[in-house]
Amino acid sequence: MNAALARVLDDVRRSDPPGAVADYIPQLAHVDPDRFGIATVSVAGHSYGAGDHRTPFTIQSISKPFVYALALQTLGIEAVGERIGVEPSGEAFNGISFDAQGRPENPLINAGAIVCTSLIPAADGAERFAAIRAGLSRFAGRELELDDAVYLSEAATGFRNLALAALARSTDALRTTVEDALDPYFRQCSLLVDAHDVAVMGATLASGGVNPVTGERVISEPVARQVLSVMAGCGMYDRSGAWLCTVGIPAKSGVGGGIVAASPGEYGIGVFSPPLDDAGNSSRGVAALQQLSDEFGLHMLSRPLTAVTALAGIDVDPASGRVTLRLRGEVDFVATEQLVHEILSTGQVRIGTAVTVDLTNATRLAPVARYLLTQMQHDLGYGVRVEILDPSGLLG
Amino acid sequence: MNAALARVLDDVRRSDPPGAVADYIPQLAHVDPDRFGIATVSVAGHSYGAGDHRTPFTIQSISKPFVYALALQTLGIEAVGERIGVEPSGEAFNGISFDAQGRPENPLINAGAIVCTSLIPAADGAERFAAIRAGLSRFAGRELELDDAVYLSEAATGFRNLALAALARSTDALRTTVEDALDPYFRQCSLLVDAHDVAVMGATLASGGVNPVTGERVISEPVARQVLSVMAGCGMYDRSGAWLCTVGIPAKSGVGGGIVAASPGEYGIGVFSPPLDDAGNSSRGVAALQQLSDEFGLHMLSRPLTAVTALAGIDVDPASGRVTLRLRGEVDFVATEQLVHEILSTGQVRIGTAVTVDLTNATRLAPVARYLLTQMQHDLGYGVRVEILDPSGLLG
Amino acid sequence: MNAALARVLDDVRRSDPPGAVADYIPQLAHVDPDRFGIATVSVAGHSYGAGDHRTPFTIQSISKPFVYALALQTLGIEAVGERIGVEPSGEAFNGISFDAQGRPENPLINAGAIVCTSLIPAADGAERFAAIRAGLSRFAGRELELDDAVYLSEAATGFRNLALAALARSTDALRTTVEDALDPYFRQCSLLVDAHDVAVMGATLASGGVNPVTGERVISEPVARQVLSVMAGCGMYDRSGAWLCTVGIPAKSGVGGGIVAASPGEYGIGVFSPPLDDAGNSSRGVAALQQLSDEFGLHMLSRPLTAVTALAGIDVDPASGRVTLRLRGEVDFVATEQLVHEILSTGQVRIGTAVTVDLTNATRLAPVARYLLTQMQHDLGYGVRVEILDPSGLLG
Amino acid sequence: MNAALARVLDDVRRSDPPGAVADYIPQLAHVDPDRFGIATVSVAGHSYGAGDHRTPFTIQSISKPFVYALALQTLGIEAVGERIGVEPSGEAFNGISFDAQGRPENPLINAGAIVCTSLIPAADGAERFAAIRAGLSRFAGRELELDDAVYLSEAATGFRNLALAALARSTDALRTTVEDALDPYFRQCSLLVDAHDVAVMGATLASGGVNPVTGERVISEPVARQVLSVMAGCGMYDRSGAWLCTVGIPAKSGVGGGIVAASPGEYGIGVFSPPLDDAGNSSRGVAALQQLSDEFGLHMLSRPLTAVTALAGIDVDPASGRVTLRLRGEVDFVATEQLVHEILSTGQVRIGTAVTVDLTNATRLAPVARYLLTQMQHDLGYGVRVEILDPSGLLG
Repeated sequence: MNAALARVLDDVRRSDPPGAVADYIPQLAHVDPDRFGIATVSVAGHSYGAGDHRTPFTIQSISKPFVYALALQTLGIEAVGERIGVEPSGEAFNGISFDAQGRPENPLINAGAIVCTSLIPAADGAERFAAIRAGLSRFAGRELELDDAVYLSEAATGFRNLALAALARSTDALRTTVEDALDPYFRQCSLLVDAHDVAVMGATLASGGVNPVTGERVISEPVARQVLSVMAGCGMYDRSGAWLCTVGIPAKSGVGGGIVAASPGEYGIGVFSPPLDDAGNSSRGVAALQQLSDEFGLHMLSRPLTAVTALAGIDVDPASGRVTLRLRGEVDFVATEQLVHEILSTGQVRIGTAVTVDLTNATRLAPVARYLLTQMQHDLGYGVRVEILDPSGLLG
Repeated sequence: MNAALARVLDDVRRSDPPGAVADYIPQLAHVDPDRFGIATVSVAGHSYGAGDHRTPFTIQSISKPFVYALALQTLGIEAVGERIGVEPSGEAFNGISFDAQGRPENPLINAGAIVCTSLIPAADGAERFAAIRAGLSRFAGRELELDDAVYLSEAATGFRNLALAALARSTDALRTTVEDALDPYFRQCSLLVDAHDVAVMGATLASGGVNPVTGERVISEPVARQVLSVMAGCGMYDRSGAWLCTVGIPAKSGVGGGIVAASPGEYGIGVFSPPLDDAGNSSRGVAALQQLSDEFGLHMLSRPLTAVTALAGIDVDPASGRVTLRLRGEVDFVATEQLVHEILSTGQVRIGTAVTVDLTNATRLAPVARYLLTQMQHDLGYGVRVEILDPSGLLG
Repeated sequence: MNAALARVLDDVRRSDPPGAVADYIPQLAHVDPDRFGIATVSVAGHSYGAGDHRTPFTIQSISKPFVYALALQTLGIEAVGERIGVEPSGEAFNGISFDAQGRPENPLINAGAIVCTSLIPAADGAERFAAIRAGLSRFAGRELELDDAVYLSEAATGFRNLALAALARSTDALRTTVEDALDPYFRQCSLLVDAHDVAVMGATLASGGVNPVTGERVISEPVARQVLSVMAGCGMYDRSGAWLCTVGIPAKSGVGGGIVAASPGEYGIGVFSPPLDDAGNSSRGVAALQQLSDEFGLHMLSRPLTAVTALAGIDVDPASGRVTLRLRGEVDFVATEQLVHEILSTGQVRIGTAVTVDLTNATRLAPVARYLLTQMQHDLGYGVRVEILDPSGLLG
Repeated sequence: MNAALARVLDDVRRSDPPGAVADYIPQLAHVDPDRFGIATVSVAGHSYGAGDHRTPFTIQSISKPFVYALALQTLGIEAVGERIGVEPSGEAFNGISFDAQGRPENPLINAGAIVCTSLIPAADGAERFAAIRAGLSRFAGRELELDDAVYLSEAATGFRNLALAALARSTDALRTTVEDALDPYFRQCSLLVDAHDVAVMGATLASGGVNPVTGERVISEPVARQVLSVMAGCGMYDRSGAWLCTVGIPAKSGVGGGIVAASPGEYGIGVFSPPLDDAGNSSRGVAALQQLSDEFGLHMLSRPLTAVTALAGIDVDPASGRVTLRLRGEVDFVATEQLVHEILSTGQVRIGTAVTVDLTNATRLAPVARYLLTQMQHDLGYGVRVEILDPSGLLG
């Protein structure tokens, strides 16, 4: 896997997509534009990396989905939804996008992210930042440090963010003082991470909220799904739609040059390369994730049909007449529906027949499959007795 | 399954979400608001339905993703992309959303859909509609008919669509005459379908472009993925973000009261109930799909971890020292990565060891898994010989 | 005066402000960019001109205030106000500016002008154009002809105007068919005028609605004031505010290169030079009017204090004690207020005094002055008898 | 005049236009809604008033044109124009209206007014406010005091203004610290004035920059014209166009319930009544100014033709053949043009004729008239000698 990642870096370096290092925060302009690293962490907790995957950079907007996650975890999805929307804004990251109820359009544009920060319960800005640093560190699996120079640079020049915070205050979306939201926001953006950290953070979302390296549950599964959904719809600024079409992995970029991506149930990815394209996303990072998605078939809407049926076989015991249906692999709607269809349409199952559904080689039972198997007894009628062999306890 | 669908209808009727039948097209106001039907068609081609799932209604905006698919299939994704964007517009369905290059923001708002219609090659509007009707009929698996009264009603009152077509013409996104795009557009919106048809159409997208009922390939797999991606990002007007968070199935609604949804690799769903919510989506349809998603775990970003490892076992033959790794079910990144990790980290594989990867019980091999298995020989070094047992031909 | 105008042309030619001939209507691009003419017509009906002031060009948007005038004259200010606003739009001439009630923001942007055209009562588009041509000809004092080539060129390419008409139809601001408003609109824009015609048209507005050359009353005085007011606020597209600050004469430009300006109570001006600046106004035309305004003090908000008091003298007849106040010139608020103040504050007027106000040398009596003079008797009390000597009948 | 003003108050009270006291600044809501006063001050410095014209209220946005005037006076029109536009924004007073160069659209919306405040040279916010208070006091002719409670209330709740200041800072339109602009802005808005003060301030603009009560020149004449022009175009928020059409006097309203109006060369008007209409203008104030405009003919674009010709007579001396042209009143373009026309078209002026233009009874000579008279000698040719009798020195 390391070799594959290294090859991706090589290929992207060769294609050399155009980009320029962000300079709207003066301190960001000092970064080395040639740094390029990538890391992946699977939901099993295994790590891979290539290039400058241990070079620190400021997390910037990559912090947004994770602070959103912390807010959701603390207040609940509904309460947060009263203050921040989940709709793509159709605008740039620093757009003045408030909906008709005065809510920032989503938590991944600056206005929404600042409100998000304000939602973390704390007595003041300093305590709020401490809570956020602790939370983001749980996602990363290690204690994250602040880049003071970048923080001071942002705080000294972040007038547009001041404007967004003040607007949010004026619509009542923001209910702390402007300062107590903005200062921890500038600080959270200036936390130092590397591509590996970012991959761990992504993997925590991908695994339903459990950090696969530390084993700690950081957020609940519904919160992880909510965050991934918002990343899927709004993660790449005004290129979010194009990203969904071509790369198809929930992701979030930062002007520091990093991108986090998370493939639910599979892995997190972190990429780092400072030059940005004109939408503000790392141009090499975008290219690297595009290549990974293409080569490894990672697009979330590209689920090829299962090549081999999950219904491994149907055995009829000549003596007892018992019919055994052997399932294997992921038993989803299609597999179960096929199974039920098979039973009902063959003549093998008659009144008095005993049916066994054998899940020994099954690896996963989709909720819809669980429902259909449970209903099967009812569908077959009382004359047929259904027994389910479930050594792994998939039925729950 | 029919029983499950019927129960969903009952539950939704009881909860009775507020809605009102569309009246902006006068003829639409004549529909019976109590009609309510649902149908699903699996990628195996099996159909289920409940309620008024065979009641005809006009397809309206549900036609948009399918005409987009026809345009993509004919001209290619890139050529279509030069004329129509893929970004959520952050506006209502009839919004005046053109991007900086003069392209409608996406093919699911009216402006983009009209341009899409114009892209279907034809000598004039009548021929264009004939081609679209034929194409949509291939998606549905039967010849679709026009509702003349609705068509005439739309054509007589569709001034905003006339404006959008004229704007698109003025930005050069539209290159036919206004009439030759608008007339077939009004006609395509007035095609009659029922919930079952819509489910077949959705299932065609879900199965990568092959109509699972007729077996005909209507569009290519990349086109199907592109269409699903745009539906995921922009399908439900200015509720698209909320839909992605809560329901999480690519979908498209129409003001006729229909909704199509498609779960890649699994099934298509069609729902029909005329009263619309304030975003213009069928309110009962939304509720029904929400319940299906919740109960059956259909959210595309909710992929629970595989409960049981795909690595079924490791056998070491005491005589020969041969190590056999038995895989089962869907072999994805996690499974393969785990396998490789296992081999490399145990002491069992030494120089001279013969390794067999047994795919007999595997049902699917993800592209990344295929890559990793192929790389395994290289990773292990030349002293180890890897043999892959692949009776189903999953390696391709 | 001709010499002064000729000198302005020379000066502007020398300063050579940058500009480019409009090409968005293909036929317009064929005009000779070097043509440059200017004409003025006083409210007394005297004409002056220099350069190409008799070279015909298409009237284009200069038609807008005059068709607005015809609509106001026919339907009344209030009725027209229900369909078209009077607010500056803050946008370009072809902006999509409709207010919250669905009205185009003002009659001088295209959307509003098209609605204006539709308000001229007629059975169809052809009849409507005939009425507009007749009306505009009354403003110009001669029969205006159509430039067929420009009309056909506009009709063939005016998709944005088609869009605006369709939008206005969809908001119910437009109530004729789109065609019956758009076709006469394209025709009215293609009427041929020269700088002299335009000056006569402006002079008709400046003289309160009477064409000073033909003597015909074309519109009422309140309509003329309304049209001048809208020109003052919105006449020069998104440079209207700057125009008001620097030139300060109600004006309207057209992409054909013409500008009409009207100084109430004084004269109309017509300028013609095809190259346009980036706001779509004739760049030489703008420079010429700027120079005229600067040199001749034409800015409407630059009313220098009257240098010499209107109160020419106070005579006290030693014999009778009668006090005679002699007024001269324009008797406005300031003059009258001063007069009243004088009488009340001097000791000369006592009970029994006879007062004569002598208006022999007065040229104009402002309404407020008329009011104050009438009130004077009341203010002075019943012991003082006031007589007004008014040989010219200024008191009315 | 006092009686006329009192009658206007009575009439407006009876018609009772709907309105509500502003409450977005909490302290403003405490004002007595029944207070209603009006005052006028002529350019001769005479004052009139009725009702609560000496009741103090906070100046609020009425301060904007005057601080703009101070900035123009200090930096020059061009330098201020680089930082603040002069175009109507088409939006409400607190709109986020910046043009393509990042300038607030005009100085009468909050964003522009805050930038204006920042332009007053000072070492810090406190010094800036001191300078502004001194300047506004010169306009009013007395030392204005701060309403501390309103200032504190605005400073505590003015988040939208904070946002506008921060946005202006981010576009570089604002170059002081946010605090050093915003704090003096909040203070300037909280200065206490009464209707009489406001009338004096308006009269100072109307008289070309000289306070007619104190005789002090506060700003130059070009600055006064610039301020009046911007008030004419943008003074009444998103009702500016309607105001120009119906009232036609440059004006500016404030949420404290005051309105200033200034009729160039004539007088200033101050009105005060707290309840505001839905555009944020004092509803009784608007009605009062409408009535004054209607009754007294104050609309600036309603200049009725001079009833009596300025050419009082032509005398030909039988002995010498000398032609004497007697002018009277305001000698403007029309009068002079008529005079020149008369001379040139009659046969009375031949080679050798001596011509006298007698300005004894003239009260004003427009710049264009001065030009034409000077040119007359040239137009007539060298054989005719022109003499101008100018006892009042109008030719300058």
